[in-house]
Parts: sequence; C-alpha cells; structure tokens
Amino acid sequence: MFESAELGHKIDKATYDLEVPKLREALLEAQIDLAKLAKFPVIILVGGLDGAGRGETVNLLNEWMDPRFIQTHGMGEPSDEELDRPMMWRFWRELPPKGKIGVFLGSWYTWPILNRVTGQTKAADLDQSMERAKRLEKMLTDEGALILKFWMHLSKDRQEKRLKLLEKNPKTRWRVTDRDWKHFKLYDKFRIVHEGVIRHTSTAEAPWTIVEGYDPRYRSLTIGKVILDAIRRRLNDVDNKMVDDIAPPPLPSIDQLNVLKTLDLKQKITKKTFTAELEKYQGKLALLTREAKFKDITVIALFEGNDAAGKGGAIRRITSALDARYYTIIPVAAPTEEERAQPYLWRFWRHIPRRGRVMIFDRSWYGRVLVERVEGFCSKTDWMRAYSEINDFEAQLVRHNIVVVKFWLTISKDEQLERFNAREKIGFKRFKITEDDWRNRDKWDDYEHAVCEMVDRTSTEIAPWTLVEANDKNFARIKILKTLCKQIEAAMKNQ
Amino acid sequence: MFESAELGHKIDKATYDLEVPKLREALLEAQIDLAKLAKFPVIILVGGLDGAGRGETVNLLNEWMDPRFIQTHGMGEPSDEELDRPMMWRFWRELPPKGKIGVFLGSWYTWPILNRVTGQTKAADLDQSMERAKRLEKMLTDEGALILKFWMHLSKDRQEKRLKLLEKNPKTRWRVTDRDWKHFKLYDKFRIVHEGVIRHTSTAEAPWTIVEGYDPRYRSLTIGKVILDAIRRRLNDVDNKMVDDIAPPPLPSIDQLNVLKTLDLKQKITKKTFTAELEKYQGKLALLTREAKFKDITVIALFEGNDAAGKGGAIRRITSALDARYYTIIPVAAPTEEERAQPYLWRFWRHIPRRGRVMIFDRSWYGRVLVERVEGFCSKTDWMRAYSEINDFEAQLVRHNIVVVKFWLTISKDEQLERFNAREKIGFKRFKITEDDWRNRDKWDDYEHAVCEMVDRTSTEIAPWTLVEANDKNFARIKILKTLCKQIEAAMKNQ
Repeated sequence: MFESAELGHKIDKATYDLEVPKLREALLEAQIDLAKLAKFPVIILVGGLDGAGRGETVNLLNEWMDPRFIQTHGMGEPSDEELDRPMMWRFWRELPPKGKIGVFLGSWYTWPILNRVTGQTKAADLDQSMERAKRLEKMLTDEGALILKFWMHLSKDRQEKRLKLLEKNPKTRWRVTDRDWKHFKLYDKFRIVHEGVIRHTSTAEAPWTIVEGYDPRYRSLTIGKVILDAIRRRLNDVDNKMVDDIAPPPLPSIDQLNVLKTLDLKQKITKKTFTAELEKYQGKLALLTREAKFKDITVIALFEGNDAAGKGGAIRRITSALDARYYTIIPVAAPTEEERAQPYLWRFWRHIPRRGRVMIFDRSWYGRVLVERVEGFCSKTDWMRAYSEINDFEAQLVRHNIVVVKFWLTISKDEQLERFNAREKIGFKRFKITEDDWRNRDKWDDYEHAVCEMVDRTSTEIAPWTLVEANDKNFARIKILKTLCKQIEAAMKNQ
Repeated sequence: MFESAELGHKIDKATYDLEVPKLREALLEAQIDLAKLAKFPVIILVGGLDGAGRGETVNLLNEWMDPRFIQTHGMGEPSDEELDRPMMWRFWRELPPKGKIGVFLGSWYTWPILNRVTGQTKAADLDQSMERAKRLEKMLTDEGALILKFWMHLSKDRQEKRLKLLEKNPKTRWRVTDRDWKHFKLYDKFRIVHEGVIRHTSTAEAPWTIVEGYDPRYRSLTIGKVILDAIRRRLNDVDNKMVDDIAPPPLPSIDQLNVLKTLDLKQKITKKTFTAELEKYQGKLALLTREAKFKDITVIALFEGNDAAGKGGAIRRITSALDARYYTIIPVAAPTEEERAQPYLWRFWRHIPRRGRVMIFDRSWYGRVLVERVEGFCSKTDWMRAYSEINDFEAQLVRHNIVVVKFWLTISKDEQLERFNAREKIGFKRFKITEDDWRNRDKWDDYEHAVCEMVDRTSTEIAPWTLVEANDKNFARIKILKTLCKQIEAAMKNQ
C-alpha cells in the first residue's frame, strides 16, 4: 500500500519553480469559480506521519490560495464543551460552507488511530470508528461535498532523517517534540494500523491519496495538483449529480392497514384522572431532572405530528415541570442562509446541548422524510438516504448518553377539522392556522404514508418512536409525560 | 427604591382569571407582529432575590407565548470555553436575532453582584462592571434592541416566608437550596448592593422595572403587561428612530496636514536586509508562539489599508511562521443573514478564539467607520457611535489578556495605480482587481479623511494603531513582523 510512497520521490528546483506559478494561478481561479458557484464545499483532510510535512504543506496551501475562501482547523485536544457532546460535534461546528475549502489537520481518524496504537482501544473499536467515519463521509459527499483525503507517508529511514533534519535547523527545531520521537519508536505499529485504516476507508466517494512526504517540493506540488484537478473535475460535473434510486420501494399497501390505523384514537381520560396524573408525572419529571445523576445525561425530545395535534400544549406540560435555565425549545422552521450552505443535519448538530440539559425540538430532522418528501422540497435520493443518516445521527447521540425520545402525535382527520375551525374562532389561536395547514390537509394520505415509512425505518431499539393517540389532548399529554419519565429513569439507571 | 415592592401587592383569582386570556392573546399578537417585522430583538433580563419567582415567572412567560419566537437562557456557571474568552462572549453568543425574544435568567449583573456581596471584589470593581453593563446596553439599544430589565424583589419577611412555603410543598421543595438560605442570611447586604446597582444602571434606554415577587398572580400579570406595553410601543414607533448627531464634528483641516500625510512613504529596505530581517523576525515569532506562556494569551491582529496596499502578502509572512493549527484568518466580507439579524459587533464576537491562538482579521470591525461610512452603507449616527463601541470592545479583549494589534497599511495614490495596472497583467492576481477598487479610488480623499479620524478616535494606549508605510512591500512586512513580535513579547512579560 505504501510502496509508491517509499520510493524517494523528488522534484528539482528548476521544475518546481516553473510549475508553481502556473499551479497557483490555476488554484486561485478554481477557488474563485468554486466561491462564485457556491454549490459545494471542499473538505480536505491531512493526516500521516510526524515529520512528513503535514503542517508545512497546509501552510503552503494557505499561502498559495486566497485566504478568504480557505480555512484550516487544527484538531488537537478537544475542549470541555466538545467533550461534553458527541465526538463528531467538533467537526460539524467547523465544516466549511458551500463554496469554501476547509482543511482539517487531524480528523476523525486521528484519535481512533492513536488510541489503537497506544493500546487504549481494541481492534473492534477501531473498526467501529472507521465504519462511522465512512458513514459520515458518505453523508457529506451525498450532500455534495468534495472530500479529499491526503495521507503523508515516510519510510522508517526517511522519517528518522526528516526528524533529525528538522532538529538540526534552529528555525525548525521547535517542530520536533518528544512525542514525535516516542511515536517514531512505534513506527511499525503505526504503519500496520495506518495501512488497515486506509484500506478500510478508501471509498469511491472519498478515496485516500498517499503522498510521500520526504521532499517538500514533491509533496507540495503533488497535493496542489490533486486538489486542483479534483475541484476542476467537480466544477465541470456539478450538474451531473447521479440520481439512482437504490433504496427499496415501500411495502405495497394491500390491506389498507398501517401502524397509524391500528391506533385506538378513542382513548380518553377523565378530567379528574388527568389532574391527578399530571401532578404525579410533572412532579416526577421535576425531581428526576434535579437529581445529581441527571448532570451526566442529556435529554433530546422531539415532537412531530399532524397539524393541530397538540404538540405545543404537550411541550408546555413538560417545560412547566422543568427549570427554565436548563431546557431549550428549538422550533424548527425554514433553514437560514448559513444553514442552507451546510449539509442537512448541520442545523441540528449546532443545537446539541451540553450535559444536564433538556432540549425539545418542535418538529425536527424528520422534516426531511415528512414535509420535504411530500411537498417535493428535496429530491427522492435525498430523503431516501435521510433514513440511514438519521439513524446514524441518533446512534451517535445515544452513544454519548443522550436520551432520544421521539413522539408522533396522531389525530383523526375529523378531529383535525374540528380543531381548525375552533382555532379560527379563538382570537389568540387564530395565528396558528395558516393556508399551509389547509393545503397539508389535502395531502392527508401522502403524509400518512410518509409517517408509516418513517416509523418503519427509524424506530430503533436505541431511539424508538412513541405513537401518541392525541384525539383526547389530556390522554396524549399524560402518555407523553409518562414515556419521557420512563426513558429518563431507564437512562439514569444505566449510568 | 424598593418601597413600592414591599407593599404586599396581591391580585385575587377572579381578576387574574379575567385578565390572563386577554393578556395572552395580546402577547401572542405582539409576538407575531414582532417576528413579521423582524426589525429589532427583545432582550429581557430577569434578576432579583431567591424565592421571588424568577424561574416560575419565566416558565409562565414561555407558557403564555409562542415558543417559536422566545428563548430562555439560564446564565449559570460559565463553561470552560466561556471562561477562555472575555466575560461578555457568553451573552453575545446567546443574543436573540431581530424579531425574537431572548430571556436571560441571570445576566451581566449576576456575577458582579454576587462577587461584591461575598467580598471577593471591591466597590470600585462593581462600579466598573456596572459601567461596562451600561455601555453594552447602550450599544444594544442603539442597534435597535428593546431591553427590558426586571428586578424581582421581596421584603426580608416575605423572602423568608416564600422560602419556607416552597420548602413545605413536596412539589417545590427542590427549588430551595442551601445556597438560598445562605443568601437569605446576607439579605441586608444584598439589598444595599442591589439598590446601588439598580440606581446606577437604570438608564433612559434600559430602565429597571422593580416587581414585588411575593404574589405569583401579581408578579406574572405585572411583568406580562410591561412586556406587552413595551413591545407594542416600540412596534408603533419603530420608524421613529431618533437621529441626533451628538458626536463632535471632526477637526477642520486648515493646513492640509494629517497623520497619513506625515508618513514617509519613501522608506525602503534592500533585498539583503529584507531576507535577513525576515528570517530573524519569523524565527522570533515562531519561537514566541511556541513558548509555554503563549498558552495564556491570545493574539488578534487586524489589517486595514488602501486597496492593493499588500495586506495579503503581509499576512502570509506572518502565517508562514505559525503553526496552522493555531491560527485562523477571518476575511471580513458582507455579513450573512444571521449576522444581519444581530448587532454590528456580533459577527466579530462569534469569532473570538480561545487562548493560545492567533486570529488574523483581513479587514475588520473598522469597516463601520471606513467603507460603511464613506459609501453611506450605514447612517451617520451608526458610524459615529461605532468609535466608542469599538474602543469598548477592544478594552474587553485586552482585559482578557488578548493582544490587539492593529495595522493600517498606507500607499500613495500613484503607487496604487501602478499596482492596479500590474495586477491586471498578472493572471493569478487579476481576480484581485474589481470595479469596486476603481470606484473606491475615486473617493481617495474621503477615505483618507475617514482613516485619520479613525486613528484619532481609536488609537488607544491598550490597542494602538500602527501606521505602516507600504510603498515598499518589504519595508512594510518587516515593520509589521517587528511590531507584532514586540507586542506579543510585552504581553507575555506582563503575564
């Protein structure tokens, strides 16, 4: 695998001096076109051995290119706020928007590799991390991102030579740390792990480019040209996005039965039961969220449902039991300009809270497979792949001790009509009914179909959907509070 | 001062039940109008005594209003990332955008008061904090924000009663902590400090509203009505923004002399000197930024200058001495949608780095008093007040061990013309010349005037401007590197 990168590639100064001005000009032009088009971001990962010139190359790239459209991120030790959130959050917060280039020195590969070589994790852990990396990259490229992964390699001899060379020069001495020499002693171990990682994660969407790092001129010119070529090819090809519907078709609805139709919407509770149960479960929720153990978990509750199904009312029954300092409601509306310049899930990642918080999403990332699907706001491929992206996303949350509680509130078509009419009569509820609501109502069956498929594809053991019969508001509210308490309790027991 | 809030205000249930539906409806309508207009944000601060119902009131507000347009922030202990930046950063990151309401439970008043009462700071420190708070609020209201500050007060008797009442009820017992009782013992001290703070910071732009917190119905209705009334008045008055040019007029230019004209643009260095000095100062910068002490400071260097004055080249001479992981270049371009919905300085606050970083702004917050002033992109009042806002902003940075280094690069009008022409000939520099550049050139004198006034008003002892004679690029680069090293060195000595 590293054969070509241990040959001692070199470029003489004359050739280099001849090539660089042309390359710089072409890179700048490509950057300008990229920024003007603003249709996809470029994500460059730079990994590899110590002393193989990762930092220098990145500095040079910054020097060659227009700094307005390129940004470098050193992914060193994570901060406390970063440790307090799922591992990938720190990358999401630094993703370049469409039209720009983001260079990552250190990436989602760095820590898994290091932890494996130093024996802190097992081979299976590394495999899992690599699977996650692949899924992330798949999602990013599906969203249009161009991902370029560079691996700076050196043979063992040459790594030693490079480190010694850097140490001898007073101007570069600081670059060589004790850690570098410690890692050098582990060269063979690193090499094996590196090889496995590269083999495992060189995908069609985001292959690795291995570059010999010994000769600065060679490595800089090589990387510059690969970047230029990739951006250019992508710019020419930008409208040629492959659309292949590889997802399996939904089950045909032969007997007209579906998960929503099996719900008994007639379920009711009396006013008296409601008052008693409300007090009970709000009190329970209040106490649970004030336990010391709660500081170690996070709750993300999301609400989806038919229009007028009573999401707002249910949310208020939850929040009135909580301390206003520790909960946030995120009403999900149309994405902003900065959000539109990012992958779909970015606008949810940015809201992921620290530990000890309750975050409530009033509508959520499921909009992709509900309203966006039904109204045709995104392509079929986009919502098709959303199922597995969402499952991935939620798995990352759960792995980080986040309790993900998902509610779908169902009402019957008749009940909805009654509520729409009632709302139009009550002054301060009038604003809740818009023309969109009436239009959505016309597509009742399409939405029902989308909901059933969503439940089938995303109700997982770690983050199950709770379907709530909401024709009786009070019944729904109690079911929701009860479910929430139960899931929080279970999570705290597992701590 | 607290007399009216110790009378034992109460409202009976019948009146309350009659008033609330009307108030809710009106609040919702005001919220919708606020969101539709999207011209100003509403910032609500809720402070006051423990047990005076701060949290409950905020919960109720959230219940009454539309959660899509209101967001509550509990300002408890700051996070590590927050501690790593100037104190106000945590508020800037949570400011509501135009059209929305942000409620802060705990504010820029909380910690200064607490630190004073517990004797950790002196009276003078508190005074300084209050001055800062006033300036922040002035800036926010100048930017259009509506600020409502509520102070929940209780007499000593009633605070004790309230705490006991809350403790007796199993459902609210968790609300009363040891800290609350500890604070209760300090009631008299708190009262004196509170009174001083309120007196000091009740300004015309952002006055305090003191509310007796004993009776939940009274305090909720009062606060709800004050909010409603303030939003309504502001909505009616939104286009009536007072424009009064209170800033002193610039000095008349009688002898045609100004700070820029005193610069000797003929200064030059030889290629040989340049090479030697470049090596010397880049090496010095490289070593300085790798010292252990550097981890305790942050460097913010900003570059302004005539078009084609060589900002980019100078920046590259700096960055090539730095580790790409620890520096960031922020090219300042037109603000995004999310940035336009915030006060002017928000888009710079959001980039403030953690310690141990070098942040380079290619153009900066001075755009307000340069291009925006000259091109008429903002009103005269807006750029007039920008001088003191900027001085304030930089003072906050410096107070937090941030080294603020400001460069103005000057070239002569002739030199600029030569460079423009040269750039149009070199392929990969062609993109650097736009029609804007030629247009700006026509306004040379206006820009010169704006620059001189900027220097006069914002070159402070803590953050001085360095005027750089840039007709000779190499001379400029060395002067910049030298200045930067000197300022970093000085800051590290003061550590």
